[in-house]
Amino acid sequence: MATLDFFYDLASTYSYLAAVRIGPLAQAADVTVRWRPFLLGAIFKTQGYNTSPFNLHPPKGRNMVRDCERQCAELGVPFRLPSPFPAMSLLAGSVAHVGLTEGWGEDFSRAVYRAEFGEGLDIGEPAVIAAIVSRLGQDAEAALARAGSAEIKTALRAATEEAEALGIFGAPSFVTAGELFWGNDRLEQALSWAKSRAKRT
Amino acid sequence: MATLDFFYDLASTYSYLAAVRIGPLAQAADVTVRWRPFLLGAIFKTQGYNTSPFNLHPPKGRNMVRDCERQCAELGVPFRLPSPFPAMSLLAGSVAHVGLTEGWGEDFSRAVYRAEFGEGLDIGEPAVIAAIVSRLGQDAEAALARAGSAEIKTALRAATEEAEALGIFGAPSFVTAGELFWGNDRLEQALSWAKSRAKRT
Repeated sequence: MATLDFFYDLASTYSYLAAVRIGPLAQAADVTVRWRPFLLGAIFKTQGYNTSPFNLHPPKGRNMVRDCERQCAELGVPFRLPSPFPAMSLLAGSVAHVGLTEGWGEDFSRAVYRAEFGEGLDIGEPAVIAAIVSRLGQDAEAALARAGSAEIKTALRAATEEAEALGIFGAPSFVTAGELFWGNDRLEQALSWAKSRAKRT
Repeated sequence: MATLDFFYDLASTYSYLAAVRIGPLAQAADVTVRWRPFLLGAIFKTQGYNTSPFNLHPPKGRNMVRDCERQCAELGVPFRLPSPFPAMSLLAGSVAHVGLTEGWGEDFSRAVYRAEFGEGLDIGEPAVIAAIVSRLGQDAEAALARAGSAEIKTALRAATEEAEALGIFGAPSFVTAGELFWGNDRLEQALSWAKSRAKRT
């Protein structure tokens, strides 16, 4: 069975687009997706950035917003840039790791993106994250408590370190059969690569 | 008639991909393309960069090379990264402006990209550029002399200043009906936008 690692940061605009698209596309390609939340900000820091390149370069940031507006319009999903941008994704990423061990991590990640880039909510706020967990029918208090545990901190740090070791420098990124694909625009190619490599082995 | 401005730098890898693809796609979309060579390095300088971001961030640079290899394989065209990268594109860009006023600028631009990213030649070398002009059946000595004229220097500078004023921060970029699209990946969307806006007016 072909598999694809989907590395995403919950503060990343283009990861939102990939999260919206990846389910049906992976199903059609018969590829199993492993959802891998990580902290892109930690990788930016090792590169000498203290914020998103979209903030450091205003023309690039303006184009990103307009590009997301156009692409979301085509996909039929809403888009608005939340404030602050990028959000602090440490808590959301930690809760995603909790959810992934309990079977609700993918739904949680999609719901975080909808709240953040559909409604413009600040996912750095614990109350926003707790409300999302509750709406999924889970125990928000327990999930947020577990999100602060050493086990989950280690898991999120390990995912980030693995991403960096794989050469990941942006999100979303897709990894399959030793190949790294960067960006929502490469989702189809990454899935196709996963499928064709799985057939050969 | 729908028109699209294609802003490209002759040292840009992804502009090579766009130059390979844009002719047939624009014809199919019934869109007229205006080829607009400019100097991306001059815009990078105003942003505080002295070289390509692909050189400043080695993981990003490695991914760009692998991504271009994969995409060129799909397109059936060769790819190799020349040295130095990025090349000095001042001379090639100037000669492109000469050619565009004389009817051979598009063929010249495609030939420069093939020499640079297909054969790995250094397009900063006058002899390389002269050979390309000659192979197009043009007078290389006259073209290179005119490339150094005040008229052509002004034209290249004006294109670069217009690009910057339009918010362009990378290459290739496509502009139509006041909308800016960045990157080879947006070529189809930009053409579609040009076509649909032309229909409405």
